[in-house]
Amino acid sequence: MEYTNYLADRVKTMKGSAIREMFKRMADPEIISLAGGNPAAELFPGDELSKIAGKILMTSPTLALQYGTTDGYPKMKDCARQRAAKVNSVKEGDEILIMTGANPGIDLTAKALLNKGDAVVVESPSFIGSLNAFRSYECKLVGVDVDDDGMDMDKLEEALKTNDNVKMIYTIPTFQNPTGVTMSLEKRKRMLELASKYDVLILEDNPYGDLRFSGEDVATIKSFDDEGRVIYAGSFSKILSPGMRLGYLCAPAPIAEKIEMLKQVNDVHTPMLTQLMCVEFMKKYNIDDYIERNRELYGKKCAKMLESMEKYFPAGKVKWVVPEGGIFLWCECPTITDITPVVDKCIEKKVAIVPGSNFATDIFAPSNKFRLNYSSATLENIEEGIKRLGEVLTEML
Amino acid sequence: MEYTNYLADRVKTMKGSAIREMFKRMADPEIISLAGGNPAAELFPGDELSKIAGKILMTSPTLALQYGTTDGYPKMKDCARQRAAKVNSVKEGDEILIMTGANPGIDLTAKALLNKGDAVVVESPSFIGSLNAFRSYECKLVGVDVDDDGMDMDKLEEALKTNDNVKMIYTIPTFQNPTGVTMSLEKRKRMLELASKYDVLILEDNPYGDLRFSGEDVATIKSFDDEGRVIYAGSFSKILSPGMRLGYLCAPAPIAEKIEMLKQVNDVHTPMLTQLMCVEFMKKYNIDDYIERNRELYGKKCAKMLESMEKYFPAGKVKWVVPEGGIFLWCECPTITDITPVVDKCIEKKVAIVPGSNFATDIFAPSNKFRLNYSSATLENIEEGIKRLGEVLTEML
Repeated sequence: MEYTNYLADRVKTMKGSAIREMFKRMADPEIISLAGGNPAAELFPGDELSKIAGKILMTSPTLALQYGTTDGYPKMKDCARQRAAKVNSVKEGDEILIMTGANPGIDLTAKALLNKGDAVVVESPSFIGSLNAFRSYECKLVGVDVDDDGMDMDKLEEALKTNDNVKMIYTIPTFQNPTGVTMSLEKRKRMLELASKYDVLILEDNPYGDLRFSGEDVATIKSFDDEGRVIYAGSFSKILSPGMRLGYLCAPAPIAEKIEMLKQVNDVHTPMLTQLMCVEFMKKYNIDDYIERNRELYGKKCAKMLESMEKYFPAGKVKWVVPEGGIFLWCECPTITDITPVVDKCIEKKVAIVPGSNFATDIFAPSNKFRLNYSSATLENIEEGIKRLGEVLTEML
Repeated sequence: MEYTNYLADRVKTMKGSAIREMFKRMADPEIISLAGGNPAAELFPGDELSKIAGKILMTSPTLALQYGTTDGYPKMKDCARQRAAKVNSVKEGDEILIMTGANPGIDLTAKALLNKGDAVVVESPSFIGSLNAFRSYECKLVGVDVDDDGMDMDKLEEALKTNDNVKMIYTIPTFQNPTGVTMSLEKRKRMLELASKYDVLILEDNPYGDLRFSGEDVATIKSFDDEGRVIYAGSFSKILSPGMRLGYLCAPAPIAEKIEMLKQVNDVHTPMLTQLMCVEFMKKYNIDDYIERNRELYGKKCAKMLESMEKYFPAGKVKWVVPEGGIFLWCECPTITDITPVVDKCIEKKVAIVPGSNFATDIFAPSNKFRLNYSSATLENIEEGIKRLGEVLTEML
């Protein structure tokens, strides 16, 4: 049977994430992956969560195994509220919604706001998962260049002025994916002013904000939003466990109410056991201590990667921005126009990196950039991976 | 701030599930709920799952807590395949996708197939969660009446003949929600013939199929589909635990591939721990023995409800179909046109039932029907709840 005629327009041209496709190819255990976005598994609190899960299911099986409420288990909502409040990102009139990871929060916010043909302004480059979520509602993506201190604000204003039906700006202001860049305080304030001037909403995605290992914290955009213009997406994926799929939205009530309805017809509610486990973990342990250990480790891993890049990359041929936190490093090769042959050669040499085209609003435009991840590999594999990559770059640049 | 202008058309008129809204009101512990769709909590294997979860997190913390693949953990896919194969519902060329409950399977199938304005033919009445999922893609719902042996096939043909752009028929053929009705084998075959004749797909939703307590099993529609026209949605919610949120789709590969992309931008993947727990449970225990205990219990509970209805309902004023399985009983009050005052009075008398209008394609049309659930309450509460309901009906009919 030929299925094309049955498909909705929205999926006809949609391409899956090349990154996740790459994961499938990476079953080869000899490949060192600098490609994913996985947090460090070596710090996962397996023993603690083992005891917690065992106890919850023994003492509260009905609560853990029966249906729950769509907006989230109340104590889990308190935990999310606590994380958001820590960065002043819960405002009067906001509602918290527990989501099954941060992604459904982005997806369902887009579903609640975007008509076909509406425009979303995004950092260019940006997180492929969010870009594809927006694409799935047949909207127009308007990319705005990212400088070393975040989105170019003049270009943002130009984009807001010249595009019709812009509904929202999507931004990852802190340790951005894929660039690792953090938006300056001045730019954050300017973004909110521009959103207000051109009457659009902001979706602030902050999965990496807790992972700073140098420099000073910068206030979230939501923290100085007194109008109710910012929807804030938080995540436990990078501070507890991505496999548990726990994230949240903090949104003005009239928007949250619509997203909750969409969640009702999507996954009904987030699994109860993982919510209860997170609540217990945060009750029994100081999650900030746990995050601190992650920060230290990521600082070390990032330093190791930077040191290896200096050592093995061909001198003067690759440019990068030094991140102050998060899990990504973004590289540019100004002497070439297309990184694809380098990426392919890397797979032969058993090291995986992600070509920059994946993060572009136009995925068909060639890119001379690539993304590196330093959170997942061991220190040893970071050096070995960068060494292999350096050999390929030395050969091909 | 006024948010209406920011909202997508699809959510502007959308109403949440009145059933889930009702749950919020039912915090009052004195209310006996015959309203929900909860499975019996008394049989949840809490102790077994406690040991399983504890062990998984102790011995395989990385697997349980790290990111997983979008299509599902391979051994979990085997478990789903095994359940589907038991009812001959995996065909050559099919792919299995693990979903976070059965609902996302329905939601994302709709997203993959439905353009705005496309039509979906559904049983009238049908499951509100699915109807609202379809509505969220701005499609047209075409309701076809349900007889005691399933959808009226002549009316189905009429619907397929007279409506443009019908993409699929959505059906719950076994122990349908809300009617409890099971479609006859003849009608199932006829439905597939009609789908083929009018070139539409079928989405067969089978969350209750394992819960038969009387009569003979009827083959799934998917089991005699040799064309690749049926997408089959299965669930572990009613045979293991709804709070774990585990379901699956069994769909022709070209459709599954698109749904997988939509899942990638929705929840990325289903939580790992709950998948691993299900795999271990099915390895260590015979899940069919566990299901058998549920069946027996539901048979007893249904009998208790029917017996109480005979005893407490005003004679001749209420009609119902005796179910052979599942968790729902559907009642009609032919002497009135609108059940709403009865439902409200019931809440005063501390018993909750769901008005039929919730399950209609036109939610504004008055209904003289209501849905009862017998899986969730205890035998004692079933009798007491029906007694209270009987008093209201005696007073108001």
